[in-house]
Amino acid sequence: MDRLRIYVDFAAPADAMDLLRSGASAHDLIFPLKPAASVLGKGEPDPRFAAADVAFGQPDTQAIADAPALKWVHISSSGITRYDNPPFRALMAERKIAVSNSTSVFYEACAVHALSFMLAQARKLPLALQTRTPGGSDTWNAVRAASRTLRGETVLILGFGAIGRRLADLLRPFHMNVLAYRRKPRGDEAVPIVAPADFPRVAALADHVVNLLPDSPETRLFCNRAWFASMKPGSVFYNIGRGTTVDQDALLDALRSGRLAAAWLDVAEPEPLPGNHPLLSQPNCFMTPHVAGGQFEESKALVRHFLANLERFIQDAPLADRVM
Amino acid sequence: MDRLRIYVDFAAPADAMDLLRSGASAHDLIFPLKPAASVLGKGEPDPRFAAADVAFGQPDTQAIADAPALKWVHISSSGITRYDNPPFRALMAERKIAVSNSTSVFYEACAVHALSFMLAQARKLPLALQTRTPGGSDTWNAVRAASRTLRGETVLILGFGAIGRRLADLLRPFHMNVLAYRRKPRGDEAVPIVAPADFPRVAALADHVVNLLPDSPETRLFCNRAWFASMKPGSVFYNIGRGTTVDQDALLDALRSGRLAAAWLDVAEPEPLPGNHPLLSQPNCFMTPHVAGGQFEESKALVRHFLANLERFIQDAPLADRVM
Repeated sequence: MDRLRIYVDFAAPADAMDLLRSGASAHDLIFPLKPAASVLGKGEPDPRFAAADVAFGQPDTQAIADAPALKWVHISSSGITRYDNPPFRALMAERKIAVSNSTSVFYEACAVHALSFMLAQARKLPLALQTRTPGGSDTWNAVRAASRTLRGETVLILGFGAIGRRLADLLRPFHMNVLAYRRKPRGDEAVPIVAPADFPRVAALADHVVNLLPDSPETRLFCNRAWFASMKPGSVFYNIGRGTTVDQDALLDALRSGRLAAAWLDVAEPEPLPGNHPLLSQPNCFMTPHVAGGQFEESKALVRHFLANLERFIQDAPLADRVM
Repeated sequence: MDRLRIYVDFAAPADAMDLLRSGASAHDLIFPLKPAASVLGKGEPDPRFAAADVAFGQPDTQAIADAPALKWVHISSSGITRYDNPPFRALMAERKIAVSNSTSVFYEACAVHALSFMLAQARKLPLALQTRTPGGSDTWNAVRAASRTLRGETVLILGFGAIGRRLADLLRPFHMNVLAYRRKPRGDEAVPIVAPADFPRVAALADHVVNLLPDSPETRLFCNRAWFASMKPGSVFYNIGRGTTVDQDALLDALRSGRLAAAWLDVAEPEPLPGNHPLLSQPNCFMTPHVAGGQFEESKALVRHFLANLERFIQDAPLADRVM
């Protein structure tokens, strides 16, 4: 195959960029004049994009539309909100441009992060790590009595892609009742799939709701006021998906009223939340700053994933994590 | 069988005591005049103990020796430090007194607690739950880069009884290299058992050392200065066993020098540590106050376990969790 022109607009440390340069040395890499701030940051407009055969990073949709030679876009994140809409999908289909993402790099870390939330809640770590209470005290008895093993409890996973499947794997030894909602069930899921008509019944018996939904017009405010009102009293809500899928005012009310025992959120809308946002001071709301996919040598992992897909692209083999 | 006189000296809420009274209504329950403060609290001397056929709780060893009719002692904890010594074992053998403990009640909660520590460390929860850093900041990149999935890492479990076996079960989906040390290997363990001669080599490659050892003359200060010096730089130490098995000064030095990335401790010596103990202010030392076995309706679970064993005792069937 000819030398490809690959436009690369994702932010990465020097060691990852070195790996990319050496792995793609048979091709021409074009870097933006001003790099994006993060793996989710949108690149700046750059007229040189129009010459690209391949784009790796978070390229602008208009720039993609305007690039006549483009054949493949590899997104450096799991989330593809910017691209996941009918006009863009139609354009990619018409132009025969393949689009892949980096789910394979992030799904395991996200699933482990979700489980870390569930176990921190089950073992009451935020309280237990602060108290120095002696054995036998009222506080001590209260912490012990509030602690759980998860055995026999029910968890509903919203969104059953790679992260949800891995979370179900990790939960298997816990002897929980694992259920999932998937927008497009395939019939080969390892756990029972809940239909939307069953949400009120299932939400009312779930001790844990783990929201992994991506952002899209269909999922926006999926967990709305009615959703929280249908959840089991004393249950726990987790969000490792996208902040836009949750009505945060309704969540706050559910946390304040005690309907929910707690919420554990890795994502919010917007990010970061303004410093005076009431969720930040709500005692039973625990938040990490969109780090669920974080991992040792993450940028190198993203580069390796792209290079492996580049090899597939050159060989005309099926791309990994193809989304369009 | 005749009506048994059962001496009960463990502390429990009213609902658990009601369960005990109704479940053992065919027998005579003798309660101490002053109840013990906790499940690990030692009872006060009581001359009425001498009349007991059965003891349930944390009875005094001298009182046991002085009770002529005693046939069975059921300990209301997993730890049996007070009883686990050659003279007491010899006395129990000579007098044909059976001794059982409550491991079945606690092992699962302890294993889940240990995993909650490992995942909180892997996902850097103590830092990530505090910072509100925006995506792309140096702190954000540092948290993400320090986060782990556990895949491919090595964990050495010290003490491979019920808790260790359950922890190994819970870790199975993580694709870790799980090794264990057991004082008396049986040959049927599901993970490779490390011999003491291999400790230096294995400690040097373990990313995680999970100490589940009970307190006994053989295990006291098991994790001593040489132990911590042999651990892999940047590794993590967890203690869900007993505080007496650790040289806390040596642990502190290993945490201060950065040899260990962190320690997560549910137990200490003494408990609670005095308020000015340096481990309490060591930033990479995370402690919970001996709550690993804690669980919803724990006292009722202890009573149910005793009642099930009482039925076995009456039927002359093998006792669960028999330790002598």
